[in-house]
Amino acid sequence: MDTDALRAGDRRALARAITLVESTRADHRIAADTLLAELLPHAGRSLRLGVSGAPGVGKSTFIEAFGLHAIAAGRRVAVLAVDPSSRRGGGSILGDKTRMPELTRHGRAFVRPSPSGGTLGGVARRTAEAVLVCEAAGFDLVLVETVGVGQSETAVADMTDLFLLLLQPNAGDELQGIKRGVVELADILVVNKSDGANIEAAGRTAADYANAIRLLRPASPWWTSQVLQCSALTGAGIPAVWDAVARFRAAGAAPDARGGGIAERRRLQARARLWTEVGDGLMEALKADRAAAKLIPRLEKQLDAGAITPGAAARALLHAFRGKDA
Amino acid sequence: MDTDALRAGDRRALARAITLVESTRADHRIAADTLLAELLPHAGRSLRLGVSGAPGVGKSTFIEAFGLHAIAAGRRVAVLAVDPSSRRGGGSILGDKTRMPELTRHGRAFVRPSPSGGTLGGVARRTAEAVLVCEAAGFDLVLVETVGVGQSETAVADMTDLFLLLLQPNAGDELQGIKRGVVELADILVVNKSDGANIEAAGRTAADYANAIRLLRPASPWWTSQVLQCSALTGAGIPAVWDAVARFRAAGAAPDARGGGIAERRRLQARARLWTEVGDGLMEALKADRAAAKLIPRLEKQLDAGAITPGAAARALLHAFRGKDA
Repeated sequence: MDTDALRAGDRRALARAITLVESTRADHRIAADTLLAELLPHAGRSLRLGVSGAPGVGKSTFIEAFGLHAIAAGRRVAVLAVDPSSRRGGGSILGDKTRMPELTRHGRAFVRPSPSGGTLGGVARRTAEAVLVCEAAGFDLVLVETVGVGQSETAVADMTDLFLLLLQPNAGDELQGIKRGVVELADILVVNKSDGANIEAAGRTAADYANAIRLLRPASPWWTSQVLQCSALTGAGIPAVWDAVARFRAAGAAPDARGGGIAERRRLQARARLWTEVGDGLMEALKADRAAAKLIPRLEKQLDAGAITPGAAARALLHAFRGKDA
Repeated sequence: MDTDALRAGDRRALARAITLVESTRADHRIAADTLLAELLPHAGRSLRLGVSGAPGVGKSTFIEAFGLHAIAAGRRVAVLAVDPSSRRGGGSILGDKTRMPELTRHGRAFVRPSPSGGTLGGVARRTAEAVLVCEAAGFDLVLVETVGVGQSETAVADMTDLFLLLLQPNAGDELQGIKRGVVELADILVVNKSDGANIEAAGRTAADYANAIRLLRPASPWWTSQVLQCSALTGAGIPAVWDAVARFRAAGAAPDARGGGIAERRRLQARARLWTEVGDGLMEALKADRAAAKLIPRLEKQLDAGAITPGAAARALLHAFRGKDA
């Protein structure tokens, strides 16, 4: 694995490295760990930005507009995605090229579809590692997009410094299809499609969310969450979003940043990821154990029927797995 | 263990049973499992109601007023608590007697302080089992109070049918000390202290939260979250809260309740508790393993220094614990 070429910006080396990191093969995993160990000292020097929003809100149009603006401001922009429903093969790549055509072709951008399939935990781990690879390759703004499946927003918030939530201009009371807890994760909320006939509705939506977040806990201790408006289509409001992102980064990088700022967030995220992966590894081993695996359907059935407590079922399973009293 | 006496309402038998369930001794655990297996067919027939709110909001006054109203409406009311910071000994019991004096003394009520110490997971498990014991003893309204430490609100929401959040009347913009995600857990939000000079502020706070929750996801698919006002001190508004609770229960018990209603919620909660306890058991075993335990401080240090990825650290730990490649 040619890490010099990668660090010099060779895109093929970068793509190969990410492919290696995404692989689930055991031999690839060992090679990937070696690669990551080599790249780690050169990672970390970016702003990691999560981008989410319900289907139809205009995520791709926004990422394209925002990404190009960031490039014009001097950044090198990588765009990754977490989508556990993603499938292997040409489909998602084609999708990407049409979704963000200019960004995909740009020499100072790198767009990569989500790793395919498997659990959210697996996809999240591989994407978090791909972030490190992109940083080592010199990308100083790394966007991680979620397509809103299951708990992917939380996973993306757990691997980024800033969480940006895109919103629709509401015509009325209808919910935006945003999952529970996601509004409170957001550092910056952007009401998109603030153009044409929608401008008034966009303004009302922005005011509604601004009032709501006053009552909720801020996502980051060093920052008051903000609600902005933009039109990814016309470009209106994009510079203001970029400006807010820059101010967030400055506040989070300050030595006296509340809660220890971005540095402390990353430290805690790494710790959390360690223990999540340990837990996932232990659980995988249990589910692969024949004695335990045989017991699972039976215990779940008894549980559903109210014939056993969760505690007793858990103890039975642990006992079967470990061969002694847990 | 005299389960007949317990099921007949003998309070000493009930207290002894809960003490057994709360015990961390291995021999008690086995006896507790036997007891629970015997009681399980008689459990489940209550409404389980979580009550939370920041310190100073008037939780005890509210629970006393609400509990007495429920008793007047024919219920038998148990009050439990989840407080991982609780300590063994007379302190918390004394606290309870003064906090809810009338309820504590009432023949149709049973008030029990939180199990002491240990992890939130341990306290939550034991409280969830205490709920079953109270139900087998004939209590048909079981309140589980949280005192707002760490993630205890989520733990309580995970063991109850309805989550009720108490709020202060806001004088202005100040946050209520409510932790992230908790507002979106609530089925019923009650602005307390809606009396005297606070009535206007209480009304504004109620309106603010009503607007906010319109933008957030409802906590239960069969129910539109509501914001009410009350004065636990004067009793004003308490009947309306009881009425909302009763309507919630009726909607959640209907055969066509969205999302499968309360029954489906309980089934999923039990499943989730099973896997949480399995995970906790596995993690305990790892942390008790000498080889793994020795490695943990070293790996965490390397992680903090950015010298290792979480994935590589996790694999090293799993390898040390299991003695082969994870």
